[in-house]
Amino acid sequence: MAMAGLVQGNSRKRVVVIGGGFAGINAAKGMAKLPVDVTLIDRKNHYTFQPLLYQVALAVLSPADIAQPIRSILQKQQNVEVLMDEVVGFGLDKRRVCLKSGAVLEYDYLILATGSTHSYFGHDEWSKLAPGLKTVEDATEIRRRVLLAFELAERQMLETGSHPPLNFVVIGGGPTGVELAGAISDIAKLYLARDFRHIDPRLAKVLILEGSPKVLGAYPEDLQESAIKQLRGLDVTVRTGAHVTDIQPGYVMVGAERIDAVVTLWGAGVQASPLGKLLGVPTDKKGCVLVDAHLNPPGYPEIFVCGDLAHVDQDGKQVPGVAQPAMQMGTYAAKRIAKLNAANGNGGKSKDKAFHYFDKGDMATIGRSKAVANIKWPFHAHWSGFMAWVTWLMVHIFFLIGFRNRFAVFRQWAWTYLTLNDGARLITGSQDLPGWEKLATASDELRASDEQVVALQP
Amino acid sequence: MAMAGLVQGNSRKRVVVIGGGFAGINAAKGMAKLPVDVTLIDRKNHYTFQPLLYQVALAVLSPADIAQPIRSILQKQQNVEVLMDEVVGFGLDKRRVCLKSGAVLEYDYLILATGSTHSYFGHDEWSKLAPGLKTVEDATEIRRRVLLAFELAERQMLETGSHPPLNFVVIGGGPTGVELAGAISDIAKLYLARDFRHIDPRLAKVLILEGSPKVLGAYPEDLQESAIKQLRGLDVTVRTGAHVTDIQPGYVMVGAERIDAVVTLWGAGVQASPLGKLLGVPTDKKGCVLVDAHLNPPGYPEIFVCGDLAHVDQDGKQVPGVAQPAMQMGTYAAKRIAKLNAANGNGGKSKDKAFHYFDKGDMATIGRSKAVANIKWPFHAHWSGFMAWVTWLMVHIFFLIGFRNRFAVFRQWAWTYLTLNDGARLITGSQDLPGWEKLATASDELRASDEQVVALQP
Repeated sequence: MAMAGLVQGNSRKRVVVIGGGFAGINAAKGMAKLPVDVTLIDRKNHYTFQPLLYQVALAVLSPADIAQPIRSILQKQQNVEVLMDEVVGFGLDKRRVCLKSGAVLEYDYLILATGSTHSYFGHDEWSKLAPGLKTVEDATEIRRRVLLAFELAERQMLETGSHPPLNFVVIGGGPTGVELAGAISDIAKLYLARDFRHIDPRLAKVLILEGSPKVLGAYPEDLQESAIKQLRGLDVTVRTGAHVTDIQPGYVMVGAERIDAVVTLWGAGVQASPLGKLLGVPTDKKGCVLVDAHLNPPGYPEIFVCGDLAHVDQDGKQVPGVAQPAMQMGTYAAKRIAKLNAANGNGGKSKDKAFHYFDKGDMATIGRSKAVANIKWPFHAHWSGFMAWVTWLMVHIFFLIGFRNRFAVFRQWAWTYLTLNDGARLITGSQDLPGWEKLATASDELRASDEQVVALQP
Repeated sequence: MAMAGLVQGNSRKRVVVIGGGFAGINAAKGMAKLPVDVTLIDRKNHYTFQPLLYQVALAVLSPADIAQPIRSILQKQQNVEVLMDEVVGFGLDKRRVCLKSGAVLEYDYLILATGSTHSYFGHDEWSKLAPGLKTVEDATEIRRRVLLAFELAERQMLETGSHPPLNFVVIGGGPTGVELAGAISDIAKLYLARDFRHIDPRLAKVLILEGSPKVLGAYPEDLQESAIKQLRGLDVTVRTGAHVTDIQPGYVMVGAERIDAVVTLWGAGVQASPLGKLLGVPTDKKGCVLVDAHLNPPGYPEIFVCGDLAHVDQDGKQVPGVAQPAMQMGTYAAKRIAKLNAANGNGGKSKDKAFHYFDKGDMATIGRSKAVANIKWPFHAHWSGFMAWVTWLMVHIFFLIGFRNRFAVFRQWAWTYLTLNDGARLITGSQDLPGWEKLATASDELRASDEQVVALQP
């Protein structure tokens, strides 16, 4: 175990940021002018703009449009170094972080912001059958499955004159589920309609299965109702109170009822990154770290837990695990470190301003030009339909990090919207052509069965 | 085995095109106005503009910039249907093609254009250690390895204060090898230079190992020399007459000499698609089908073999396996079918015009603004350096199928060229962080060893 180089052994305070998502990047950027040395660690080399991942999954955007190397984002900030590595342990007493590569980093301040991942409620075997949407790899896998379903149907239609109904099932009626469902419907009805000769992609059906009595549970009731109406306009059926009891290749069980599904997608549950528990401080049942008003786990004023991994209560409700609070927490941690650092230098005490989530509202898109928007700032309003969608579009372009991506995404959207053509409808990954059963399993499994051309004379 | 639907059972002639590359797409497009029904079969759902694949591999372009769904390209051509499937057998006497899905297609004319793949000269075990560049998946795998090498070096530098020399070895000094080598050098010296804090990516070295006495063997001598000079300007070393005898993780053997390599890439040999041999007609030693002046295998005037898979001699030399002749062969086959079809209808005989490859010249780029161009039309000239590069750029943008891609690629190039920033430098695929040894193996192997977070208290 070696001590790390650049940031060690000078008098500046050392800050280790773990996780390069909304919270981590905002924290790092917030420390640009501080006299501290920052090390940002992430398992991936890129930051992913998660709110637009579903557009990659549904073949409108390319991964590079919504993901950017973390190094590029922080290139000009000389007090930051980026490390592609993984945390395997903490030594809180000695203020150390152990990395998978064997290196050990010492810190004066630690920001932990490794987010959340899918939860299959104890059914981990479902993860291959119903992929969720958290990473670029998830998105290309979903894209692969949805597009392959239409290819398989065309092939079978040509051969036998019929094909299984193109039923897509989305489990979970939160924003991700609603966005995925609307986008599948759009892709089938608008973009793919002219591409096939034997099947009619417009006959594809999308079903959302939601366990609770409502879709978009976090939204006001009028917007929930509007969302269901807008979804119905896209031929997306919503079933609430539907508890999924089993997922198998080709179908989903809700109690004793079997629902056929050529592709099943998961938008139902999340759990915290395992690093929360690894920290060894109290967590809630999802694994989120219970933090105080300064985002510190009790007893560790030098550790900040930010983003989805933090359990913060405010006005009697838990701050939701979405982009806005994550960004605000990252910025708060940076400001707090600035104060603690200055106070430290002066031998004084820092001011005691608590974190407060400033909620500007929430939005969820439903297909190509529909959305719901629960706006809380700069005014209060509930918007539905086209106007909500335009607002969603503006806000998301504005928050994309990096001008190139902002411009590229806007161009791609404008082009796809106007022409209904030429998205990123590539099927990549497995070279194998799966049957229907195999469509429901991960591409790396398929890859195992490599091609062998057999001389078969009819 | 079922007979296929739409194209069967009417009086129009049926054409089956196998392969959606340059030759297959041009053949299909060439038959747009013929009274025939065309079925185009490809294993992938997308056409790949192979001459720009190396720009995906080296993180300038995204896959969707240079690949397009075959269905989109042929969407408006009503006499074409596209099938994502794979050919597993031919019945030449009954004019049938058997597909992996079990379907059997009957044809009146068959166009076989499935191209070529890498040849490791009997060392198939090298394919995982030194990936070649034929598909979008190859390109993202190469991008992954090259970018990871710099990440691993940074990590090791931080931990131990040193890292293995960043030697990249490219095996093969043809156009692909030269393009890859130049681009790796560019990426290290221009794009990555400002991204790292501990290593200096500009110290990366690239070595081309070429077995023959010359690089760019198909080019005139003055351009070969210019290429070597331009490569030297990018710190790329060329060793000719170097026969690789073994490839191992971390090094390459040339005879008894061991050459260290953090990443090894393959641009040395190609072999024909196995469908050539499956056809059961004479092939050359690379597996290319020996065809006559009408691109027919002897005795089969209704079968056309086009593109890399065809062995065509002209003026005592073999027509090369590159984009131009493939496109021309595809167009020729379509015209020939038009004539045969018309002659058939009139009970007459078709005219006997042979295929003639019209060679407009060749170009190969060397990094960001260098190239060699051997121009043969509309005038003869040998160009080197910037002017050759601008010509290369124009020609390639012009030949990209689809306006969206043309525009997107131009924009991306302009942006990357002017800012030296913001290419598509994403590392996707395996979630695992490999060590140096594992860097040299394929990502689907790495994927097997999934993460387990271990509580390790220092």
